[in-house]
Amino acid sequence: MVKLKNRQWRLANHPVGMIKESDFNWVEEEVEYELQEGELLVKNYYLSLDPANRSWISASPKSHYIEPVKIGDVMRGITIGQVIESKNPKYDKGEYVIGTLGWQDYSVSKGSGLINISLLPKPEGVSITIYLNVLGMIGLTAYFGLLEIGKPKVGETLVVSAAAGAVGSLVGQIGKIKGCRVIGIAGTEEKCKWLTEELKFDGAINYKTESVYKRLKELCPNGIDIYYENVGGKILDAALANLAVYARIPVCGMISKYNLTELQPGPSNIVQIVTKRALMQGFIVNDFLGRISEAMLDLMTWFNEGKLKYREHIVQGLENAPRAINMLFDGSNKGKLIIQIAKEPT
Amino acid sequence: MVKLKNRQWRLANHPVGMIKESDFNWVEEEVEYELQEGELLVKNYYLSLDPANRSWISASPKSHYIEPVKIGDVMRGITIGQVIESKNPKYDKGEYVIGTLGWQDYSVSKGSGLINISLLPKPEGVSITIYLNVLGMIGLTAYFGLLEIGKPKVGETLVVSAAAGAVGSLVGQIGKIKGCRVIGIAGTEEKCKWLTEELKFDGAINYKTESVYKRLKELCPNGIDIYYENVGGKILDAALANLAVYARIPVCGMISKYNLTELQPGPSNIVQIVTKRALMQGFIVNDFLGRISEAMLDLMTWFNEGKLKYREHIVQGLENAPRAINMLFDGSNKGKLIIQIAKEPT
Repeated sequence: MVKLKNRQWRLANHPVGMIKESDFNWVEEEVEYELQEGELLVKNYYLSLDPANRSWISASPKSHYIEPVKIGDVMRGITIGQVIESKNPKYDKGEYVIGTLGWQDYSVSKGSGLINISLLPKPEGVSITIYLNVLGMIGLTAYFGLLEIGKPKVGETLVVSAAAGAVGSLVGQIGKIKGCRVIGIAGTEEKCKWLTEELKFDGAINYKTESVYKRLKELCPNGIDIYYENVGGKILDAALANLAVYARIPVCGMISKYNLTELQPGPSNIVQIVTKRALMQGFIVNDFLGRISEAMLDLMTWFNEGKLKYREHIVQGLENAPRAINMLFDGSNKGKLIIQIAKEPT
Repeated sequence: MVKLKNRQWRLANHPVGMIKESDFNWVEEEVEYELQEGELLVKNYYLSLDPANRSWISASPKSHYIEPVKIGDVMRGITIGQVIESKNPKYDKGEYVIGTLGWQDYSVSKGSGLINISLLPKPEGVSITIYLNVLGMIGLTAYFGLLEIGKPKVGETLVVSAAAGAVGSLVGQIGKIKGCRVIGIAGTEEKCKWLTEELKFDGAINYKTESVYKRLKELCPNGIDIYYENVGGKILDAALANLAVYARIPVCGMISKYNLTELQPGPSNIVQIVTKRALMQGFIVNDFLGRISEAMLDLMTWFNEGKLKYREHIVQGLENAPRAINMLFDGSNKGKLIIQIAKEPT
């Protein structure tokens, strides 16, 4: 038995519009952890904040692909942590794991759905948070959406929205690896510069200061072959208006829609799906479970070759999670948004 | 040399909104036909009127998948006619052909793009117009869209819009052949009755008198696995809101959009593409050229087995073509809309 002080964010309300701190309750309590056979106790170091978190706490069950978080439950979230006690033969004390362990300091798990990252190869000299990024759901989402649905061919034009985001920046770089011309759409000059100068995108559009429609027309004179969709709304409309024949649109997300309090008009140019005989397909990583090791191997290889760069935006303190998550929706984060819950032991 | 009186509809203006008779010029003139080597002269009996005709005469080149008809040119249209003179070894006098021979009595062709239907098998006791329907572009459009993109499986729920139309009614029947539950959406009680009583659809929704959203919810309790899209607009929105996970949406057309004079808001529920990991794909028959004989064989077999019923709406007289075509857009035709230009010889 271990007695520990645990801190948690529990869901107080299904948010309406943007997430407010009052949509959660902060709970601090002493807990006596008595593990059952097969269970392990994890101390969480890092919490991943992702756009999908917003849809997990919507009131309307229509907008979910997994069960919504119930009022009173610990907020769902993916963390990296360390096993501090174990009655599960697959996990030894001291090993690192990644899993859906929630917005809290300590989590008890039966091990199902956990990945033991101490058993995985890790590139040298990088933080373990790479498993929340290139070598995690983010990398796999970029990989499968682009390669399985987008099916890029050498010389094709790939456009990525939310291109400086965690997924978008990897999509563009994988597109370059596959020989595409890559145009990114982002919301600040700094992000656009990062895309073209650091990541070697062929062009970038600042959707806050430029006409996306006109710039896409200029930068994609033969049309867009692949539009990797992260945002929805007006940017989708501008992309639809510039499609090449047989365009593919992997739909990873539509972040512009997640905080809407009522339905808003969709893309006026949806008829272009017929005219251009385009394909538009939504997906999540789970749709490709059978191919994860192959994908991880590619991602690892490309990373080790210096072809996949990423940046992280780390916010200190679990207490800041409800405020920090809105950065994803106003675009103020630079790179993968992560909460550091506790320092790793050195 | 043959001297004949030819009558033609030539394009006068790119229509704005619904087609008006004044968008065409009626020309009657004596023509001396002197065939060159390889040419043949065809007398047209039947003219197919199809929703796609509208997009062929739009001013904006963005909305085309083939060259728009030029002002002054004979209106483009698919006809069935008979060879009355031939200097082309592949076509003998008296044979019947189908091709894009225009809104006119007589057409000169070099033979490219023509199909010699005298060489094809034809079910007994039916009009030659079956080649403008089940055994033509219409049948192939229903076939490839449903089977190649929709990929129906036994027990799945298929919803078809414009279900009493030429394509839609075949889609539903092919869906039944493949073991689907089929729900059709149409615009009159008579059409809905035809779908359920004659074509044995499992349900029909009158979009003019019922809430499509609510009725789809009732009739498709496990969601829509395949939505075969012919119309766009509010019906697409209602279908998106009722998708099953992994739904497929073959997009054959969006007839509600073809006469719009300005862009209108698209589907509010487009985010369902992500949530339901749905696939939406536009297509035209030409995308499947390599598989036409296989498709024709299936369609012929099913027709001979009594599994594919159709109806025709035949309007007499080439002079009525510009007025008749609007029936496609107000839904007043019952079945495949065809102009009879001249009587076949008996």
